[in-house]
Amino acid sequence: MKLALLFGGASYEHEISIVSAITVKGKLKGFDLSFIFCDQDHRFYLVDASKMKATTFSRGEHLKMPQIFLTNGGFEQRGLFGSKMHTMPILNIIHGGDGEDGSIAALFDFYGISFIGPRKEASMFSFDKHYTKWLANSLGVKTLPFEAITQDKRNAIATPYPFIVKPSRLGSSIGVSIVREPSELEYALDVGFEFDEVLLIEPFISGVKEYNLAGFSARGEITYSIVEEPQKAEFLDFEKKYLDFSRSSTVAEASISEALVKQLQNAFKTIYSPLFEGALIRCDFFEIEGEVYLNEVNPIPGSMANYLFEDFNGSITKLLGALPTKKEIRVQYDYIHSISCAKGK
Amino acid sequence: MKLALLFGGASYEHEISIVSAITVKGKLKGFDLSFIFCDQDHRFYLVDASKMKATTFSRGEHLKMPQIFLTNGGFEQRGLFGSKMHTMPILNIIHGGDGEDGSIAALFDFYGISFIGPRKEASMFSFDKHYTKWLANSLGVKTLPFEAITQDKRNAIATPYPFIVKPSRLGSSIGVSIVREPSELEYALDVGFEFDEVLLIEPFISGVKEYNLAGFSARGEITYSIVEEPQKAEFLDFEKKYLDFSRSSTVAEASISEALVKQLQNAFKTIYSPLFEGALIRCDFFEIEGEVYLNEVNPIPGSMANYLFEDFNGSITKLLGALPTKKEIRVQYDYIHSISCAKGK
Repeated sequence: MKLALLFGGASYEHEISIVSAITVKGKLKGFDLSFIFCDQDHRFYLVDASKMKATTFSRGEHLKMPQIFLTNGGFEQRGLFGSKMHTMPILNIIHGGDGEDGSIAALFDFYGISFIGPRKEASMFSFDKHYTKWLANSLGVKTLPFEAITQDKRNAIATPYPFIVKPSRLGSSIGVSIVREPSELEYALDVGFEFDEVLLIEPFISGVKEYNLAGFSARGEITYSIVEEPQKAEFLDFEKKYLDFSRSSTVAEASISEALVKQLQNAFKTIYSPLFEGALIRCDFFEIEGEVYLNEVNPIPGSMANYLFEDFNGSITKLLGALPTKKEIRVQYDYIHSISCAKGK
Repeated sequence: MKLALLFGGASYEHEISIVSAITVKGKLKGFDLSFIFCDQDHRFYLVDASKMKATTFSRGEHLKMPQIFLTNGGFEQRGLFGSKMHTMPILNIIHGGDGEDGSIAALFDFYGISFIGPRKEASMFSFDKHYTKWLANSLGVKTLPFEAITQDKRNAIATPYPFIVKPSRLGSSIGVSIVREPSELEYALDVGFEFDEVLLIEPFISGVKEYNLAGFSARGEITYSIVEEPQKAEFLDFEKKYLDFSRSSTVAEASISEALVKQLQNAFKTIYSPLFEGALIRCDFFEIEGEVYLNEVNPIPGSMANYLFEDFNGSITKLLGALPTKKEIRVQYDYIHSISCAKGK
């Protein structure tokens, strides 16, 4: 089965996307894999399997590899004596900007390229945590209360201490701070505003339980991963998460009640269907006094959350065999014909 | 000043986009204009000014014109002896799918092409009327109450008669019905579901006042059009709207109080900034008992709402000179370097 891993992108998460792709490469067996690197200038390169290591890209060695171009139906590799088309389906592993903000989804949809990953609308609702809350709340899934602030509102925060400050549109804990008292506020806001114009302020609840659950839908049926209780640091900072993106060994299932697993799966399903069709996503939840709260949706989770699936290879195969296609619209030119007829020409 | 009009697209509004582009061509003076047609298969063609008439496209004559290809920085025209780049800014006049759903915005942003039109996020919030309401309400702008229904909820409508049924994601009144009594419901739902999986149900308020206001922001200042009270039919059906898309003569200003104009402008500004930067949009409002309600946002209004601007030419020039650019992200490979160093290679 042919499949191309797409990674890189012009994003603060460019490097972790490279690490993720290398990890996924190691986990997929029996596929006819290709590797497509998107550099920070939005040029695509076909990367030889033997060159799939992080230093290839940091040293700029990809510049010597064949450049390929997006076009209707796939990627075109141009040569002196004609061009070759690459039409395999794509696994989108570009974390953050480009991959998760709807750009890649829009490009692939436009050019009729089959891919695993969130579609445009799904991307926008997960990329901006502010919008994720609107979505979840409209579907009856609880989220923590929040304030969204811009630079001009930085002195008007109403949430009581302690609270979390996070950029509205970044993942991987970039720019996130816990603020316990007023003296820590200015710095936390400055850091946050380095990365986004909108910051979210959420109450910081010490000792809250966290659970991650991944999954995907194929032919109307959802496949869930095991539930993980992520490693307990107060929260994962970028360096810890970075290492996290190279995880490949299966983790232990959280020891929680059947009822809580069901609650998490139900919340997952409500968020997933139908918006996230075509993607393998990870939802990160809080549990507070027996109630489940959605923290965030990772529509392209680090290393595709391979470590949460008993049969990751089988999961990707199943999803690949059931990707959604875009409804085709055919234009009949009825109105133009009728107007031209009326005009007698 | 160079500018290319982009029109067509794989959309139910393909034909009215052609009409719109022809109308805008007639209204712009002193520009060095080009014309780019996007056909229903997502191929782009460079159209000679002399061929800018509706029948060119319904007869397929564009197939004989030079095909151009999206690439970094612009459109590439390939020839036997090398290729030529077209790098002028674009005025996106693709109504409906492709143009207004964020696809074109994502493509142009990705390839670093300067354009007039809604950006990805703005597109999503205006394309789906359901999301427009979330946006407006979060900003404190009133909208009519609504229900969003899918096929399985068609028998569970709670809104009292009479009500309006409309596809959540289409403009130009396609698939819209007024339902006055139960006997009319089935047909209206069937028509609506032909075009979208989600329908909005809104109360139909007879005799409500409607006002349209267009505008755009350039260098932090909003230019407003005059306020129009649109032609009074119960609502505009597709054929009437179709003719509407070829409007080119300036309309009469609505005779309303200064205070109401101010109210409409304030609501416009709240919706516009900063989400719609880069676009010339038209907001359609209702006035009910002295209060202003947002009906919908047209981020690419028919014929660019030229008939609402005293100086349409000057307006496009002003907007063109102040288009937003995407923040560039440079990757330093710090993490990969530090990991490689730690590994000693």
